[in-house]
Amino acid sequence: MTPRVEFHYDFGSPNAYLCHRVLPALMARTGVDIHYVPILLGGVFKATNNRSPMEQFADVKNKPEYQAKETQRFLLKHGITELQRNPFFPVNTITLMRGAIYAQGKEWEADYIEAMFKAMWERGLNMADPEQIGTVLAEAQLPISEIVAAVADPEVKQGLIDSTANSVARGNFGSPSFFVDDELFFGKDKLRDIEEEILAGRTLS
Amino acid sequence: MTPRVEFHYDFGSPNAYLCHRVLPALMARTGVDIHYVPILLGGVFKATNNRSPMEQFADVKNKPEYQAKETQRFLLKHGITELQRNPFFPVNTITLMRGAIYAQGKEWEADYIEAMFKAMWERGLNMADPEQIGTVLAEAQLPISEIVAAVADPEVKQGLIDSTANSVARGNFGSPSFFVDDELFFGKDKLRDIEEEILAGRTLS
Repeated sequence: MTPRVEFHYDFGSPNAYLCHRVLPALMARTGVDIHYVPILLGGVFKATNNRSPMEQFADVKNKPEYQAKETQRFLLKHGITELQRNPFFPVNTITLMRGAIYAQGKEWEADYIEAMFKAMWERGLNMADPEQIGTVLAEAQLPISEIVAAVADPEVKQGLIDSTANSVARGNFGSPSFFVDDELFFGKDKLRDIEEEILAGRTLS
Repeated sequence: MTPRVEFHYDFGSPNAYLCHRVLPALMARTGVDIHYVPILLGGVFKATNNRSPMEQFADVKNKPEYQAKETQRFLLKHGITELQRNPFFPVNTITLMRGAIYAQGKEWEADYIEAMFKAMWERGLNMADPEQIGTVLAEAQLPISEIVAAVADPEVKQGLIDSTANSVARGNFGSPSFFVDDELFFGKDKLRDIEEEILAGRTLS
């Protein structure tokens, strides 16, 4: 039985971007689709009393340097060359994530996700700014007016609230997070374990 | 060139115990010795303004449950069956770690390390208690009076202070931590990366 694999993501997380870049290879190796589930990371943090690693470890000697080194190792290992610091970080991603909720199941969903991760973590754009969002949508030939209307729609707004609450109810406390069926895996360090879990599930079938 | 691999450990860390249990297999696979370097985790935390994950995440919803699950996964994966909660946790390990400094290079060093990890994380003993330490040393047929004298020796005490300060100076902020030459790897999640780093180093030689 092929497990259902979900990636709970927020465009605001650089580690979610890094996972996004390596998931295609993981899907190719396992033959399993990964479902992108938008969550608002700020909402997860609020609901779980959690904070970003950057905040948590800002005052811990050596740890920020170690985390920077871990990022470099990940880039090197996976041949990722386009990561750029975002000068506007932390960016309020609520509009982007509402757009991601609306994008779910649309034929342009993957294009939307790719354009937003790229804007945040390869182009360093201020994606809290509606004008900048519009420019990025136009460049990616996405349906701007439809998306602009959708992100103001109470149902879409509620959809993001529900998706975030559901993620927390299932045990999540941050991002990037993955569920392989009901098994939570947290962080980009867990990608190999996720792959093993998928393959183990398929072997059992 | 075979890299120098160091394991910076404190008996007080359950994750250091878990690493200790899997290092023999890693050494066998890589053919590389791992040098055990005693550090006082409390000293590292003080020097780096860090705290244990247990303290750090005590108030974060879902995270303690996730960490317990991660421990269970590690036990299952590596066939470790003897881990027990220590009812005296957190235990002040300063005497044990001074003993570990004195043990370095002695023919009974490995026996000392094994006896102490076992006492802490398989037998749940109060290893801050000098009488209990004496009993454990006797059971393991270690040179009690020599060790009891050594842990009060100012040179040994300074040795632990220096080892801890040196670890922090090299970039460490916790335990279990590993150095492959000068490359720091933190946490039991990194054992596979450590193995890859060792094998990559040997391939380059």
